Amino acid sequence: MISINENFLKLQAGYLFPEIARRVNLYSSANADAAKSLIRCGIGDVTEPLPLTAREAFKAGVDELGSSETFRGYGPEQGYDFLREAIAEHAYAGVEVSADEVFVSDGSKCDTSNILDIFGHDNKIGITDPVYPVYVDTNVMAGHTGDADESGSYEGLYYLECNKDNGFVPSIPDEALDIIYLCYPNNPTGAVATREQLEAWVAYALKHKAILLYDAAYEAFIQDDSVPHSIYEIEGARDCAIEFRSFSKNGGFTGVRCAYTIVPKTLTAKTSAGEEVTLHSLWQRRQSTKFNGVSYPVQKAAAALFTPEGKAEIGALIANYMENAQLLSDACKAVGLTVYGGENAPYVWIACPEGLDSWGAFDLFLEKAQVVITPGSGFGKGGEGYFRISAFNSRSNVEEVCKRITNLFN
Amino acid sequence: MISINENFLKLQAGYLFPEIARRVNLYSSANADAAKSLIRCGIGDVTEPLPLTAREAFKAGVDELGSSETFRGYGPEQGYDFLREAIAEHAYAGVEVSADEVFVSDGSKCDTSNILDIFGHDNKIGITDPVYPVYVDTNVMAGHTGDADESGSYEGLYYLECNKDNGFVPSIPDEALDIIYLCYPNNPTGAVATREQLEAWVAYALKHKAILLYDAAYEAFIQDDSVPHSIYEIEGARDCAIEFRSFSKNGGFTGVRCAYTIVPKTLTAKTSAGEEVTLHSLWQRRQSTKFNGVSYPVQKAAAALFTPEGKAEIGALIANYMENAQLLSDACKAVGLTVYGGENAPYVWIACPEGLDSWGAFDLFLEKAQVVITPGSGFGKGGEGYFRISAFNSRSNVEEVCKRITNLFN
Repeated sequence: MISINENFLKLQAGYLFPEIARRVNLYSSANADAAKSLIRCGIGDVTEPLPLTAREAFKAGVDELGSSETFRGYGPEQGYDFLREAIAEHAYAGVEVSADEVFVSDGSKCDTSNILDIFGHDNKIGITDPVYPVYVDTNVMAGHTGDADESGSYEGLYYLECNKDNGFVPSIPDEALDIIYLCYPNNPTGAVATREQLEAWVAYALKHKAILLYDAAYEAFIQDDSVPHSIYEIEGARDCAIEFRSFSKNGGFTGVRCAYTIVPKTLTAKTSAGEEVTLHSLWQRRQSTKFNGVSYPVQKAAAALFTPEGKAEIGALIANYMENAQLLSDACKAVGLTVYGGENAPYVWIACPEGLDSWGAFDLFLEKAQVVITPGSGFGKGGEGYFRISAFNSRSNVEEVCKRITNLFN
Repeated sequence: MISINENFLKLQAGYLFPEIARRVNLYSSANADAAKSLIRCGIGDVTEPLPLTAREAFKAGVDELGSSETFRGYGPEQGYDFLREAIAEHAYAGVEVSADEVFVSDGSKCDTSNILDIFGHDNKIGITDPVYPVYVDTNVMAGHTGDADESGSYEGLYYLECNKDNGFVPSIPDEALDIIYLCYPNNPTGAVATREQLEAWVAYALKHKAILLYDAAYEAFIQDDSVPHSIYEIEGARDCAIEFRSFSKNGGFTGVRCAYTIVPKTLTAKTSAGEEVTLHSLWQRRQSTKFNGVSYPVQKAAAALFTPEGKAEIGALIANYMENAQLLSDACKAVGLTVYGGENAPYVWIACPEGLDSWGAFDLFLEKAQVVITPGSGFGKGGEGYFRISAFNSRSNVEEVCKRITNLFN
C-alpha cells in the first residue's frame, strides 16, 4: 500500500492568499458597485511590458529553432555558456563569481526550494520572522519541522526576529544554526542589510561552518550605494553562501521564467565520515538529474538584458517602480502612518494604524478604500501589526491608491 | 556544522554519457581524420525544426508581453486554462481526463523526479531493467536505496526484468510493490505494452493499492492502433496511475521545455492514521509551493500544436522519425542483426553481434564505422548484450549510418 509524505499535512492550507481572496470575494459580492473600483496592491508581480531588447532576442531565439542549421534541442542543464558568462561578467562585475559557478534556472522559487535536496535532514534551520513563506513551507514538506502552533510557527525551525528595533535585520543568534535564509532587499519588509550586518553573518557562518542561503531577487532595486548587492561582496562569503537571483523583478520576467543560483566552487561540507565534498558538485548533480535546462529562447531574452540597451530598459523599469514606492510611502507618511522599506525595495512596509492588527488594516483598506493590501501577519507572527503595499502597479493605479489613502485618513 | 545529503554519494558518477564522451574523445584525438565523419546516434534528442505553427504562437506570446494591456506576469503554477483545456480535449480525446487534472510543467524529467516529493520514504519501488536512469537516480538521491553493486543495481529497489522473452514488458511481480515506474513506448528498448499487459498492471496496482507512474513521453510514435496511448484507456487506471507526457519528442520541444502530468482527482492514498488524501491535492500543493509555472509564450506555442495545422506538422515530424527508424531497423536486419523496437518508438534496440557485449559493440561502431551508439548496459544490467540506435537524426545522417552498417558487417 502506497504511503504519502505526511509532512504535507502539517502545512497551513496556504492561508494567506486564499484568505485574502475569500475576504475580497465576500466584500465584492456584498458591494458589487464599490468593488468595481478595487485596486490590488497585494501580490509582488510586475505590471510593465517586457523590455523591447528582451522581446527581440526572445523572438530571434524562436526563429533559430525554425531552421535545421540553427535548431537546438536539449541544452546544458546549467544554462548556456553565453548566459552564464553574461551573468558572471555583468551581474557580478567586480565580484569573484565565475561563469561555471552560475546555474541558470526557471525561477528563484524553484531554486530556493530545490536547494534543500542537497542537504541532510538534521540541519538546524534559521529563518527570519516575518519571512517569504516558501522557505518555511519547503522545510515543512521536507520533514524538517514538527507541527505549527496557533500563530503559524513551526516546531523545529529557528525564528530570527525582525522588528523595527533591529531594522528588520535579525541579530546574530547565540546558538549554532546550520542553514540560515536571508533575503535582502527583503520581501516583505523592504529592509536592506548593511555591509556590517552581512559581515557579521558571514563571520557567524564561517565560525559555525553554516551555510547562508542568500536571496537577492530584489538587488536591482537598491538605491543606496553603500548597500551590498551580493553576499559575495563580503570577504569569506564564497566559503559559506549560496546566492539566488532572478530576472523576474528587474527584467519583468515573472511570466517568462528565468533565474540563477551561484554556488561557489570553494563552498564545501564534510560528510559524516569526514570526507570533504563541494556543494557545487552536489548541485550540479541535482540539476543534471532532476532538471533539463531553461527554454533556449528565454535564455536568449535574459542575456539581452545585459546589453547596453537592455540595461537602460531595466534602469527605466526600476526607476518607475521606485517612483511608485516613493509616492506610496509619501502618501502614507502624510497621513501619519509609520513607514519602513520602499527606499531600496519595491515593497512599502507600514505599521498598522493605532488599534488595528494586520487583518484589521486589511479590512479597513478593503472596505473603506477598495484597496487590497497584504496583511503582515501572513508572513509570520513577526509581521503582525504591519501591512505591505507593493509598488508593482501602473502609475495611474498608484496615484489613485495614494488619493484613497489620503481620503481614508482625513 | 552543515550536513549534506549523503545519498548523493551513492550515485554512480553519471557513468553512461560521460563514459561515452571519454571513449569518443580518446578515439577522436588518436584518429583526427576519421573522427571528422563521426555521426552521433546516441542521445534521444530531436533534430528537426520547431513546427511553424508553434513558432508563430510562441512569438505572438512574446509580443503580448510587450504591451501593458496584454502583459502577463505570474501565471497559474499548474498552467494556463487554455493549455490545460487543449490537452484534456485533444491529447485525451475519448479518455476521461479533465482540464483540472492536467499539471503543465517544464519537462517530464522534472515531473518524474519531483513526483517523489509527495510520497513517503517507506514505499517499495519497482523499476524495469533496463530503465531510463532518472527513475533510479532520483530514488537514490531521496534515500530510498542502499549502495549499488558492481553491476550498478541498487539495494532496496525492485528490478523488474525486461528481456526478449517477455517482449521487454515485465511480468507481474509476486510481491506487493507500492510504486512502479512503467514507460511505454519504452526508452531505451522501443517496446510497447499491449492493452492486456496494461490491464494486468492496473489490476495488480488496484489489488495492492499501489501507484503506477506511467511515462508516456513517446506515445505519439505509436503506429499500431491496438496499442494504448494512455494508461487511462485501461479501466481502473484513474484509481492507481499518474501519467507523464511531454511536447519534447512530438513537437520538437526538447529545447523549448513543456510537458504535463495527469493526476486524476479519484486517486487517493491513506495516511498512517487512516485518513484518505487525494494525490491531486498533494501535487497541487507541491507545485504551488516549489514551482512557478511555465513561460507564457512557451504555453502558447504548446497549445498551437493542437490546432489542425499543428497536428499536421507533428504528424509529419513523427512520420519522418519513424521512417528513420525503419531505415535503421532494415539496415541492421539486412546484415543479420536481431532488432527490437523501432516500430512504435523512435528507438531501435539491437542485440549485440555474437561475441560482443554492449561496450564491445559500442567500440566496434565507433572505431570501424565512426558511429556513436548507446550501449544497452548503460540502462542497467538487463540492457547488457544490446545497444540502442536513436532515430532522432537528419535523414542524410541516417542514410549514411545505414550504409556504414552495411559495410561494417559485409
